[in-house]
Amino acid sequence: MKTTDGATPPDSPERDEPHDLTRSPILPDVARLDPAERSQLEESGRRWASTLPPPAPEEALRADPSQREVVASRRGAYVRVRPSAQFAEVRPGVLRATRLASEPSSPTGRALSGIKHVLVGDPLSLQHYIHERLSKLKALAVLSSDAISSVAYATEAILLILLAAGTASFRLSLPIAGAIVLLMLVVGASYRQTIMAYPKGGGSYIVARDNLGDVAGLTAAAALMTDYTLTVAVSVASGVAAVIAAYPSLAPYRIPVGVGCILLIFLGNLRGIREAGTIFAIPTYAFIIGMYALIAGGFWLLLTGRAPIVQYPAVQLSEGVSVFLILRAFANGCSAMTGVEAISDGVPAFRPPEWRNARTTLTWMVVILATIFSGVTLLAHLYQIMPDPTGNSPLLARLNAAVFGASPIFYAIQFATFLILVLAANTAFSDFPRLLFFLARDGFAPRIFRRVGDRLAFSNGIIALAILASVLYALLNGQVDALLPLYTIGVFSSFTLSQAGMVRRWYGRRQAGRRNGVPWEAEPHWRRRAAMNGLGAVTTLLVLLIAAATKFTSGAWFVLVLIPCLIVVFLLIHRHYGRMEADLRVEAPLAPDDIRHTVLCPLADLNRPALRALAYARSLSPHVIAVHVSQDEEDVARIQAKWGIWGRFVPLEIIESPYRGVVLPTVAYIDALRAKRPSDTITVVLPEFVPAHWWERALHNQTALRLKRHLLYRPGVVVTNVPYHQRKV
Amino acid sequence: MKTTDGATPPDSPERDEPHDLTRSPILPDVARLDPAERSQLEESGRRWASTLPPPAPEEALRADPSQREVVASRRGAYVRVRPSAQFAEVRPGVLRATRLASEPSSPTGRALSGIKHVLVGDPLSLQHYIHERLSKLKALAVLSSDAISSVAYATEAILLILLAAGTASFRLSLPIAGAIVLLMLVVGASYRQTIMAYPKGGGSYIVARDNLGDVAGLTAAAALMTDYTLTVAVSVASGVAAVIAAYPSLAPYRIPVGVGCILLIFLGNLRGIREAGTIFAIPTYAFIIGMYALIAGGFWLLLTGRAPIVQYPAVQLSEGVSVFLILRAFANGCSAMTGVEAISDGVPAFRPPEWRNARTTLTWMVVILATIFSGVTLLAHLYQIMPDPTGNSPLLARLNAAVFGASPIFYAIQFATFLILVLAANTAFSDFPRLLFFLARDGFAPRIFRRVGDRLAFSNGIIALAILASVLYALLNGQVDALLPLYTIGVFSSFTLSQAGMVRRWYGRRQAGRRNGVPWEAEPHWRRRAAMNGLGAVTTLLVLLIAAATKFTSGAWFVLVLIPCLIVVFLLIHRHYGRMEADLRVEAPLAPDDIRHTVLCPLADLNRPALRALAYARSLSPHVIAVHVSQDEEDVARIQAKWGIWGRFVPLEIIESPYRGVVLPTVAYIDALRAKRPSDTITVVLPEFVPAHWWERALHNQTALRLKRHLLYRPGVVVTNVPYHQRKV
Repeated sequence: MKTTDGATPPDSPERDEPHDLTRSPILPDVARLDPAERSQLEESGRRWASTLPPPAPEEALRADPSQREVVASRRGAYVRVRPSAQFAEVRPGVLRATRLASEPSSPTGRALSGIKHVLVGDPLSLQHYIHERLSKLKALAVLSSDAISSVAYATEAILLILLAAGTASFRLSLPIAGAIVLLMLVVGASYRQTIMAYPKGGGSYIVARDNLGDVAGLTAAAALMTDYTLTVAVSVASGVAAVIAAYPSLAPYRIPVGVGCILLIFLGNLRGIREAGTIFAIPTYAFIIGMYALIAGGFWLLLTGRAPIVQYPAVQLSEGVSVFLILRAFANGCSAMTGVEAISDGVPAFRPPEWRNARTTLTWMVVILATIFSGVTLLAHLYQIMPDPTGNSPLLARLNAAVFGASPIFYAIQFATFLILVLAANTAFSDFPRLLFFLARDGFAPRIFRRVGDRLAFSNGIIALAILASVLYALLNGQVDALLPLYTIGVFSSFTLSQAGMVRRWYGRRQAGRRNGVPWEAEPHWRRRAAMNGLGAVTTLLVLLIAAATKFTSGAWFVLVLIPCLIVVFLLIHRHYGRMEADLRVEAPLAPDDIRHTVLCPLADLNRPALRALAYARSLSPHVIAVHVSQDEEDVARIQAKWGIWGRFVPLEIIESPYRGVVLPTVAYIDALRAKRPSDTITVVLPEFVPAHWWERALHNQTALRLKRHLLYRPGVVVTNVPYHQRKV
Repeated sequence: MKTTDGATPPDSPERDEPHDLTRSPILPDVARLDPAERSQLEESGRRWASTLPPPAPEEALRADPSQREVVASRRGAYVRVRPSAQFAEVRPGVLRATRLASEPSSPTGRALSGIKHVLVGDPLSLQHYIHERLSKLKALAVLSSDAISSVAYATEAILLILLAAGTASFRLSLPIAGAIVLLMLVVGASYRQTIMAYPKGGGSYIVARDNLGDVAGLTAAAALMTDYTLTVAVSVASGVAAVIAAYPSLAPYRIPVGVGCILLIFLGNLRGIREAGTIFAIPTYAFIIGMYALIAGGFWLLLTGRAPIVQYPAVQLSEGVSVFLILRAFANGCSAMTGVEAISDGVPAFRPPEWRNARTTLTWMVVILATIFSGVTLLAHLYQIMPDPTGNSPLLARLNAAVFGASPIFYAIQFATFLILVLAANTAFSDFPRLLFFLARDGFAPRIFRRVGDRLAFSNGIIALAILASVLYALLNGQVDALLPLYTIGVFSSFTLSQAGMVRRWYGRRQAGRRNGVPWEAEPHWRRRAAMNGLGAVTTLLVLLIAAATKFTSGAWFVLVLIPCLIVVFLLIHRHYGRMEADLRVEAPLAPDDIRHTVLCPLADLNRPALRALAYARSLSPHVIAVHVSQDEEDVARIQAKWGIWGRFVPLEIIESPYRGVVLPTVAYIDALRAKRPSDTITVVLPEFVPAHWWERALHNQTALRLKRHLLYRPGVVVTNVPYHQRKV
């Protein structure tokens, strides 16, 4: 369904957005029914009609819970009728559940749900979904926190690698930073094309899958998933380091403080914090202002000759300056590029004309990122600031201290750094679950990730990310430089795939245009555009290869193994869902008269639950057999005697079990019955004693439960539970 | 059912032994049916008879799996008949399951069960139960390992307390040990009475409950349970210490070695190691011989003046010699008494005349224990051996080293010490599960502890003890002296209760005899016997009070809190089972014609599983309603359109759920239906998609499972699962 609608960016109607859950269709979309499915339904209808009387009047059967609720008093003396608070009638046959109908009714359930509501807030109806549109100023704050915050660690990432070749090699950080800035401009220009082409949001997964096929899309998705997890871990680690630099006494609590931050962001996202709140604009602008103030102040001190420059200490050399070392430093510094794709992902959040506003904002962001990054790197070089492998006093904090001393400005900048880094982690918490939603919608991830939670957020994805990121953070002890080698691979894989997808797109559209006889009309400047995206794709691929080669042994191998594994899992899941879809449609269906019943009633004794189950079984069919598994002769004699007193209304089969199993001999008996009557439906009616309180369940052998588990996998066997409820005292 | 059968010790027929599972009754014991239960059955029979036709011929319905197995080929082309390997017919209506019928049939199940068989051995039929009788020599080895092994730590336990008052106070260990030996003789004499009175085994729980009532019995049981758990932990800790004394390089591996020992004993017991194996006699006799050799060698060196006596080092005094200190040392030393009751517990294991052989063996045991304990204590004093709080070089090992140097005899004695201590732990592994079996049989513990495992051992009790003991051992870091304060309370509580029970018994029997007009005939020497048991009860009570008072703050408080808590739990469990029993018998039962059906079929879509469930539902009753919970309008339109194409054979109720819940609105709808038709039985027919492989279940929302869980607690609701099996590819 590729459209060729010229200058206005095309829409992709086959991709339904999560925001569209409330959308009302004008017409019931019956035309979309698969013909095979349609004929299956008609065939089934014919078979039912041939054996059944015409359908009974429907209304007599319905519960009508919307009209009134009938409440019988405990003593059965009177019946009260009151309007229902749980359901409202929308139109005949369609009820709407109120919030009350979606709340548990048991005391324990209510208590648990109360705790949940306190933590994440009251559940919201779908009508509450508001899609706020962002001005460019707000959008810059919200969507670029991830990218801009990375200057907090990128410069240090370069120097930490160069440190191996001594402080003299630090001047190499300037050309390396220059190359990275150039890369930022190329990638920025390339993403400007993507924004125009995908005004509904062009995340790497969507662009790559659309243009390069499933495997490319899934590669981008797998890369992005590792990337988002690492964003949370790296940003929080870096944010905690910024705080520790200001308050060194917090150093021993690195892990609890960081996990606490992740937990707070997690709860906030479960509550459904809207990305668009003004409150989120503050840290980004505070940080941007702080950085420009730092750069200005730093140069001012240098020019006035009052800069407190301490000579680099002597460092033991562990290797010489080599091309490999420089490339490694470059690859490490490329962590400055993370988050650049965020704006192209969030185009629909802009005010119209969305794509034009988004492009402008992207340009601003790249300019801000490039200036701050080059300013900080240059100043760090001039001030001769050492990188710190321990992570207790980040380079940016020491530069800050060198320029502003222990003044309030120092603390303000550290705090703004902490906040923007936490905000960057928060961005991952909205992108990761959305990506999982897209994957689940396309059948590549488990369906639970499609579920919209109480607060209209994708709760299951949020929970998954919180667990992954916390474990990663704790495992790597909250050290930024241990996490960075894992980082670049994911980021640059998704860059490369997204931009290669764009190149393929321009080329494909030109071909389509030529076939339709309008070769150049649709995309006026396709050559220039393809070239721009091509340049982006080639440069990012180069960085990817450099990163993979230079950082392979220091952790990148893990990501390079992980991504293919994830892709295989995605594909296996897709195959399962595909088979299931096919499975649900084929073969001629059953009509009620085709079913021949044999009912089996396993029982432990002839007591009240058993008599109730027998009565229920006998009311289903006259073909009922009772089975009793026994471990000793005395028990056999006892149940046979009771059976005789009762009247032998149902044949009793006794199985002696010298190996003491109850479940497996019963299952073996049922298998024998299935073999004897392969065309019957065997209904196993299980009496189940339900204690008055849930904790009392531990006092009962879970025989019924185990039997059910075994029977679930036996075709032609239906399991019916007849509960017997202990009276509460 | 107290009998007065004179000199031959009375039997208690109301206590069925675990060994009696294979016992065949001569007559079906119908007379034992409770009259209320009987009339309930007859009433139920009358109601069934009034509405039902006479029962159908039974044979037509049965599966007859014993005769032949009908195997349809995959293509349905032919049917093969072969004799069944799973069932054998005992008599008409009674089958016997073979081992094959008790084995899982799925590949995963077979693999798991294969692993289990390798670890714990092939399952045994009840016919394999052999009750081996022990000669006195073997019985001494098997039943006294717990008691005799305690000399490995008892002397040190005394000295560790006295250490606080300096080495000069060590000479007090001699009178303290003397008092303990006296106590042994008193308790031994007292237990000789118990053996005579309870030839079926008179554990403290049974004796106390029989004569002093439930609470006393449960107190003894709770005390014994803590005692057995501590026996495992203390014995293993002490055994590991004995090995570490010989091989000090093992010291850092104290925890893994100890937990490994517990694991081995655990697996051995799951395999159903028979207590009676000759192999178990070796360590006990090796240890006894080793100890006598040590004592003899020690005195020989002293007499010949070649004993390598090193003066005690100077010790900083932390307190003076006080009565409190002496009593504490005495209480600590009483750990030598643990296990003395074992023989009275195991009387049925002796060769006839059981009680007489058991009494003789008890006398031997007390004599051996008393001589070794006093010999070791005296030698330790003469050789001036220091106690070692670290547990790395136990006093007994240093005495051994002082006497035998690094000779092979030294290593042999250390190894024998290790083995007898492990054997003592093994004793707890047979006693603890048996106690839990008795408790479960009387309704004071969960029923799972009545289950006889694959190897005819009480597996669940064995598992429980292994977990408790391992956790305790690891928590207290395998330190014997940290565990000892917890020990004495449990041991002496059960001593006191058991002997007080015996006093009450003699008195009660005299009263009964007097009422029956045969005052003295039944129990010839009741006064002497009561006095003997009374002396035992009073002295052990005294020790209990001393231990509770002097060791309260060093851990005894925990046991003193734990025991009442356990008693409360036992009583709550008993109340639950009692109520259940009562509940299963009352009220008039239902007949099949009393049941009016309403069938509800919740479905996610009108696909094959749903059509199958609808057909099944409609075959049960014409009163079927389908319910569909929907989250958006499009879905509503879609299912309504499909319903129309199909033919509307069943009314469809649609519930829109803007809060996105599926389970709870369905439950609320069912509640409304129950309220509208309170006398109907509502059958909820759930279509359930069963994936081809179990690991694929994670890919499906567990809606059916959650719905079932909610409906289980709703009276009048029957849940039926109609599985739809994905085809394996």
